Amino acid sequence: MLPMLLAAQTVTSPNGNIAVTFSLTDNGRPTYEMTYKGKAVVKPSHLGLELAKDKHASRGLDETDLMDNFSVADVQTSQFDETWKPVWGETATIRNHYNEMAVTLQQTVAIPIRAAQGNERGLGVKNKTRKMVVRFRVYDDGMGLRYEFPQQEDLIYFLIKEEHTEFAMAGDHTAWWLPGDYDTQEQMTQQTKLSEIRGRMKEAVNWGNSSVAVFSETGVQTSLQMKTDDGLYINIHEAACLDYATMHLELVDAQTKALSTQLGGGSNAYTPNPKPSPYPLPAPFTFVSHLTPDATGLKGAMQTPCETPWRTVMVSDDARDMLSSNLILNLNEPCALDDTSWIHPTKYCGVWWEMIVGKSNWNYTNDFPSIKLDRIDWNKVKPNGRHAANNEKVRRYIDFAADNGLDEVLVEGWNVGWEDWANMWKRDVFDFVTPYPDFDIKALNDYAHSRGVKLLMHHETSSSAQNYERHLKEAYELMNRYGYDAVKTGYVGDIIPRGDHHYSQSMNNHYLYVIKEAAKHHIMVNSHEATRPTGICRTYPNLVGGESARGTEYEAFGGNNPDHTCILPFTRLQGGPMDYTPGIFVTKLNEWSDNTSWARITIAGTLALYLTMYSPLQMAADLPEHYARYMDAFQFIRDVACDWDDSKYLEAEPGDYITVARKAKGTDNWFIGGKCDENGHKCNVKLDFLDKGRKYECTIYADAPNAHYEKNPQAYVITKRTVKKGDVLKMTEAPGGGFAVSLIAK
Amino acid sequence: MLPMLLAAQTVTSPNGNIAVTFSLTDNGRPTYEMTYKGKAVVKPSHLGLELAKDKHASRGLDETDLMDNFSVADVQTSQFDETWKPVWGETATIRNHYNEMAVTLQQTVAIPIRAAQGNERGLGVKNKTRKMVVRFRVYDDGMGLRYEFPQQEDLIYFLIKEEHTEFAMAGDHTAWWLPGDYDTQEQMTQQTKLSEIRGRMKEAVNWGNSSVAVFSETGVQTSLQMKTDDGLYINIHEAACLDYATMHLELVDAQTKALSTQLGGGSNAYTPNPKPSPYPLPAPFTFVSHLTPDATGLKGAMQTPCETPWRTVMVSDDARDMLSSNLILNLNEPCALDDTSWIHPTKYCGVWWEMIVGKSNWNYTNDFPSIKLDRIDWNKVKPNGRHAANNEKVRRYIDFAADNGLDEVLVEGWNVGWEDWANMWKRDVFDFVTPYPDFDIKALNDYAHSRGVKLLMHHETSSSAQNYERHLKEAYELMNRYGYDAVKTGYVGDIIPRGDHHYSQSMNNHYLYVIKEAAKHHIMVNSHEATRPTGICRTYPNLVGGESARGTEYEAFGGNNPDHTCILPFTRLQGGPMDYTPGIFVTKLNEWSDNTSWARITIAGTLALYLTMYSPLQMAADLPEHYARYMDAFQFIRDVACDWDDSKYLEAEPGDYITVARKAKGTDNWFIGGKCDENGHKCNVKLDFLDKGRKYECTIYADAPNAHYEKNPQAYVITKRTVKKGDVLKMTEAPGGGFAVSLIAK
Repeated sequence: MLPMLLAAQTVTSPNGNIAVTFSLTDNGRPTYEMTYKGKAVVKPSHLGLELAKDKHASRGLDETDLMDNFSVADVQTSQFDETWKPVWGETATIRNHYNEMAVTLQQTVAIPIRAAQGNERGLGVKNKTRKMVVRFRVYDDGMGLRYEFPQQEDLIYFLIKEEHTEFAMAGDHTAWWLPGDYDTQEQMTQQTKLSEIRGRMKEAVNWGNSSVAVFSETGVQTSLQMKTDDGLYINIHEAACLDYATMHLELVDAQTKALSTQLGGGSNAYTPNPKPSPYPLPAPFTFVSHLTPDATGLKGAMQTPCETPWRTVMVSDDARDMLSSNLILNLNEPCALDDTSWIHPTKYCGVWWEMIVGKSNWNYTNDFPSIKLDRIDWNKVKPNGRHAANNEKVRRYIDFAADNGLDEVLVEGWNVGWEDWANMWKRDVFDFVTPYPDFDIKALNDYAHSRGVKLLMHHETSSSAQNYERHLKEAYELMNRYGYDAVKTGYVGDIIPRGDHHYSQSMNNHYLYVIKEAAKHHIMVNSHEATRPTGICRTYPNLVGGESARGTEYEAFGGNNPDHTCILPFTRLQGGPMDYTPGIFVTKLNEWSDNTSWARITIAGTLALYLTMYSPLQMAADLPEHYARYMDAFQFIRDVACDWDDSKYLEAEPGDYITVARKAKGTDNWFIGGKCDENGHKCNVKLDFLDKGRKYECTIYADAPNAHYEKNPQAYVITKRTVKKGDVLKMTEAPGGGFAVSLIAK
Repeated sequence: MLPMLLAAQTVTSPNGNIAVTFSLTDNGRPTYEMTYKGKAVVKPSHLGLELAKDKHASRGLDETDLMDNFSVADVQTSQFDETWKPVWGETATIRNHYNEMAVTLQQTVAIPIRAAQGNERGLGVKNKTRKMVVRFRVYDDGMGLRYEFPQQEDLIYFLIKEEHTEFAMAGDHTAWWLPGDYDTQEQMTQQTKLSEIRGRMKEAVNWGNSSVAVFSETGVQTSLQMKTDDGLYINIHEAACLDYATMHLELVDAQTKALSTQLGGGSNAYTPNPKPSPYPLPAPFTFVSHLTPDATGLKGAMQTPCETPWRTVMVSDDARDMLSSNLILNLNEPCALDDTSWIHPTKYCGVWWEMIVGKSNWNYTNDFPSIKLDRIDWNKVKPNGRHAANNEKVRRYIDFAADNGLDEVLVEGWNVGWEDWANMWKRDVFDFVTPYPDFDIKALNDYAHSRGVKLLMHHETSSSAQNYERHLKEAYELMNRYGYDAVKTGYVGDIIPRGDHHYSQSMNNHYLYVIKEAAKHHIMVNSHEATRPTGICRTYPNLVGGESARGTEYEAFGGNNPDHTCILPFTRLQGGPMDYTPGIFVTKLNEWSDNTSWARITIAGTLALYLTMYSPLQMAADLPEHYARYMDAFQFIRDVACDWDDSKYLEAEPGDYITVARKAKGTDNWFIGGKCDENGHKCNVKLDFLDKGRKYECTIYADAPNAHYEKNPQAYVITKRTVKKGDVLKMTEAPGGGFAVSLIAK
C-alpha cells in the first residue's frame, strides 16, 4: 500500500474522459495516477530519478537522488489547441490538443561540504534547494509526462543511476511484448498475460534471434501494447527521446526478487548494480522504467536546463484509436528544419533481396581472410563473380524502377569492405566513399537521372559509430556530388566504442547527430538497427524511415509469424514509420539457395501492407523477375501512394486484423488495405468516407478463395468495378492474407 | 627457475657489445635474454599474449592464447644500415644501423568445433596452425622487439586480455619511475631501488596530483630509466605505439601476491580480471607488461596482418648515450607525409601563463551555472572583465612576439565554452570555431600576419574525444581560412566516451587520427595531456610537441622539484619532444593572486632548458612585462635556435645534471645549456667541437655566485668573450640553476 497521498492535483483531457492526478506521498515522493472514463489505467505510481555517485561530485556533479523529500512549490495548468501540418504523414493536418499541468517540486537537502575530492571528512553541511518540474499533458487519447530540470545553482550536472518511473497496471492485462534488450528489438512479439511474462521469457529470448540478451526475467520493451479484460487498450511508450537513454520496462510480478538475473543469449552481459536500490519495489503488475546503460553501467549524464523524454500512456476502449493516435508526434517539438522542400515520400526497389535470399553477395572478392581498407588495391583483387552491386545489374534495377514509377533504387554492397564487416570488433570497416571496381558511381547515377530515377545510398556502419562519424561529412559530400538524396544506414553488430549499446544515451545522440548532419546536406535518413523511434520525425522529418523491429528480412531468417504485421502498427509504428520492405510475391526462398525459410504471407496480404504499415518510404522488395510473373498484382504497388491527406482506420484488433483507408495526397483517390493473422478474416468495408456524388474506379486485389499463406500464397483475384459513397465491399481475407483496393476518382 | 631453453638463436649489435638471444622453453614458451659487454641486462624473460574470451569467437575471433606450445618454424637474420634526415631534430642526419633477427613461431592447437554461438556441445576438434613472428632489432645502444601477426586463415581477429612481455632485471637497480596510471603521467618522478617501489607507491600517488590512480602497487610507467649498481644505464620504453594500448610495467617483487590491489586517488577504478592468469609470475625484479584497458577491461582488438609496438631496452655504461640515442625514432616508420615543407620549428609566446598564475581567466562570463553552447547568445551575456583572450591583449602579445623574433602567439580561451569545461561528463563542451565576442579572429590574424607573426590555435577537447572528432574538419578549415598553421590540443579530464582511458588503444588511435587529419590541412600538432609519445614524430613530423608529463604549469600547482628537468630527458623525452614551456623568470607566483606556489629554478637555469629539453617548439612562457624586467637575460631566448644540425651531450647523470652543446641548423653557431639539480654543479665545458681556426663571440648566461632556486633565483651574470676550439668554460651552476651559452661564429 502506498502511504497517504497529499496535495492531489488533477488535470483532465479536453473531452473529460481521461484524468491524471498528481500527489506527494507523506515522505515527499511524487506520485501520479490515471483514469479513463472512471476506470483505473495507471494506479498510484511513483516518479523519480536515482542519481549515481561520482568521483567528480565535489566539483559540481550532484549525487542526491531526485526521489523523495519533495514539496510542491507551484502548480501551473494550461490548455493548448493547435493544428499543424506534417511534412509527410497519414493525414494532411494534425491537431495537438491537450490540457497541461506543470508541477514544480522543491527538494531541500542538507549536504556535507567536502574540502576536495577524496577527502571524506565533513566540513559541516549546507542546505541545497533543487527544483524539478513534472509536466503532464493530457490528451483525449492518452497522456505524457516528463521530468524537467530548470537551470539552477544547486542542480547543474548529474549522472543517472536509474529512472524510477512506475506504471502500476490495474490488473493482469494481456500484453504484446518484446524481451528487454539493450541492442535489438528484432524479436517476435509475445502475447501473454502480464503474469505470464516471466514464464515465457526464456522461450521468447531463444525465438529466432540468437543475439538477444535480456536485462531481467520480466524486462520488456516499449511501445508495449496491452488490453484489459474489460476491453481497454493501453499502450506505454515514450516520445522525444533525444539525448537520453532508451527506456525499457521491468515488470514487478509476484516473483520479483532478483532484479538482475541474466538469461540466455550471449550478448551484452548485464552487470548488476553494485548495491540494490534503496527504494522498495511497488506492488505486482507495476512496470518500472529501466534505462539503457553505457559502457560503465551508468544510464545518463545530464546538464541543466534539460528534460527527459515524455513517458506516454495511450488509452481507449476502441483499438483503432491506438493506430490513429498522434500522441507521440504531438509530444515532439515542431519541425526544426527551415527548408523541407527536398524531403519527399519515396517508393523504391533495390539490389538487396537477392542478397538476402542468397542469389548474390554484398562482397566482391574471396581473396583475403580479412580486409584492411588501406592495404587493398581493389583493381587487382580477384572478383568472386557473385557481387550484386555491379554496373550491369544496377542498370537493370534502374530500368525496372523507371518502367514502374518507382522513385529510387537502393544498392547495397556498392562500397568496399563487405568481405568482413560485422561482429569482429573491426573499427575501420567501411569508408563510405570508395566503390567496388565494378560499380561506376558516376555513370550509374547519371544513367539513373537520365531515366528519372535516383539511387538510394547505403551506409552500413557495422555499428562502428565512431568510424561513421569520422567519415560522415565526406560521405554526405559524395552523395551531394552524385545526386543521392536519401541514405539507408545500418547498425548491425556490437557498438564500437566497445561496451556501449544501441539504445544508450550516447548512441541515441549519435543517431540524432547523423540525422542533423544529413539534413544539412539535404539527405533523408532510413536508419536500420538503430534505436526504436519516439516520434522525432516530427522535429526532423528527414528521418523518413527506420527498422528497429523484425522486418521482412526475417522471412529469410526463419520467418515472421502471420500476425506479426497486425501487431507492429500497435507497437513499433507508434514512434514513427518503419521501412518494413513489403512486397514479397515469391514466398518460398529456396529458388536460389538451400534456404528453407519462407514468407508467411499471401500476395494480396503483402499488397495490404502498403496501407496498414504506414510509411512515407515504401519498398517493392522482391526481385524484378519475380514481379514479372505477377504484373497484374504488381500494378497495385505501382499505383499506391505513400503520402496521405487522410486516413480512416476501419477496424483493428492487435494481432488479429487491421483495415485502413487512406486518401492519397493532393488527389481524390483512396486506397484501402486489410491485413489479418493466420486465422483469416472477413470484413465489410463501408465506403462512407468517399465524396458524395462522385464515382470511383475500384480495383480489388483479394485473396482467392483457396489462398493460404503457406499452401497457396500466390492465389489472388483482381476485380474491377465502379463504386460510390456508401457502397460496401465484402472482403474475405485468407489465413495470413489480406486485400488491397484502389479507388480512383472519376 | 625457467625450464630448459631450447633452440637458442643469438643476434648481436653491429659493434658486438649487445647480444640478444631467443629460445623456447620446453613447453614452447618464447623467451629472450639480453647482455651488454657480457653483463646481463635482461635475464631470460618470457614473451606472449593472453587472449580474451569473446562471445563472437565462433564467428572468427580467436581465443587461443599466444603464450606457449610454439615451435620455431623459421629464423631470418639480416643487417640494416641507413642514414636518414629528420624534418627537424637534434642532428641533421640519423643513422639507423642494426642487426635483425625475425623468429617465425608456429603454434598448432586442437580446437573444439562449435555449431553456433552459445552451443557449448563440441562437434569434435580440428587442428589450427597459427604463426607469430618475434622480430628483434639490435643496435649499438639497445634493442627493440615486437610481435608480428601475418595474415593467415587461422588467426584473423583476436582480443588481447593482456600482453605478457617480461623484462627480468639482473638486480635491484635504481629506478626513476612514475606510478602506473591509465590517464596521466603528470606526477613527480620517484627515485628508488626496485625493491622500494611498493613501499613508495602510496606516497608517490599522493604527491601533488590528486587524479592519479594506480593499477598495481608495483605498477610504473615507461620510459623507465634505471641504473645498476655497477654503472649500467638501462631504459625500457616502447616505439611506434599507433593502434595499440600504451604499455605500463608491473614489477614482480618479493611481495607480489595480489596483482590488482587498488590504491589511492579516485580516478579510474581498476577492475580486477575475473580470474587470474594461468601463466605463473616470474622471478622478482622482473617487469611484466601491463596494457591500458578500454571501458570493458579489454586491452586491444587486433586484425591480422598487424604488429605490436616495439618493446625497447636501451643500455650503455655512459649516461650520455641514453640522451643521444635515436633508438626510438629509428624503430618508427619513415616519414609518411609527401610534403613537409610547411612544418617548421617554432618559438612562441602565449596568452597562457597569466591565466595559470591567476591574473586573468579563460572564460568570458559568470552569468550561468553552466553553458549549453546552442542556447547562448554570446553578444548578450555580461563579460566578467577578466577574459584574457581579448583583442587588445592579444595585440600586445603579437607586438611582443614580433619585437622579439618569436614566430607565433598561442591564445587560450579564445573560443566559447570555458565557463564549465572540465570533468562534468559534458560531451558538447566546445565547438572549436566560435570566438568569444571580444576576440576578432579575422582582425587579430590579419594584424599578426602584418607583423610577421602567426597565431597558434588552441583546441582544449576536455577529453571529449567524440566531440573533437565531430568538429575536427570544420575546426581545421577555420584554421586554414585564417592562417593558423599549428594547434595546441588538450585532453584535460576524463575521456568521453565514458569508461575509456587516455592511454587505451582507441584513444591512441584518436590522437593518430587527429595528427593525420591535421597533416591533411598542413597543421602542426602539440598535444597536451595525450598519451606519452613513442617516436611517431618520425612518421608524422607535424607532431612537433606534446606534454604527457609534469610541465612548467605545475610550478603554479605546487611546484616541480629542481631535479625534474634533469630526469625528463632520460624518460619523457625518449619518445619525442616535450612542450615544457620554459622561461619563467619571475618565479614567485603571488604577484597576481594568493597562489603560494613558486618555480624551483633560477633564470640561468631556465635558459638552459632551451637546450637540455630538446624541442622544435619552444615557448617563452612568462609574461611580457616580466621579461621587460630582465631584457638582457631574455636576449638568450631571442637568440637561441630550436632546430639543430648537431648535438653533443657533454655530461649527464639522471636526476643530477645534463650539459649539451648544439649547432644551430644551417649555421656555424653553437648554443650550450647546462642544468643541474638542487645541489648545484660545477662543470668544465671543453669547446673541442668548434671549428678549428674559427673564432666565436661567446655570451655566457650564468648563475650569480649567490644564486639559488628558492632564495635568489633572479641572480645571474652575463659575460661576453671571444673563444676558439679547445677553450674551456668553467661553469658553476647554482642549486636549481644552470647556464646557457651562445657561440656566434665570426
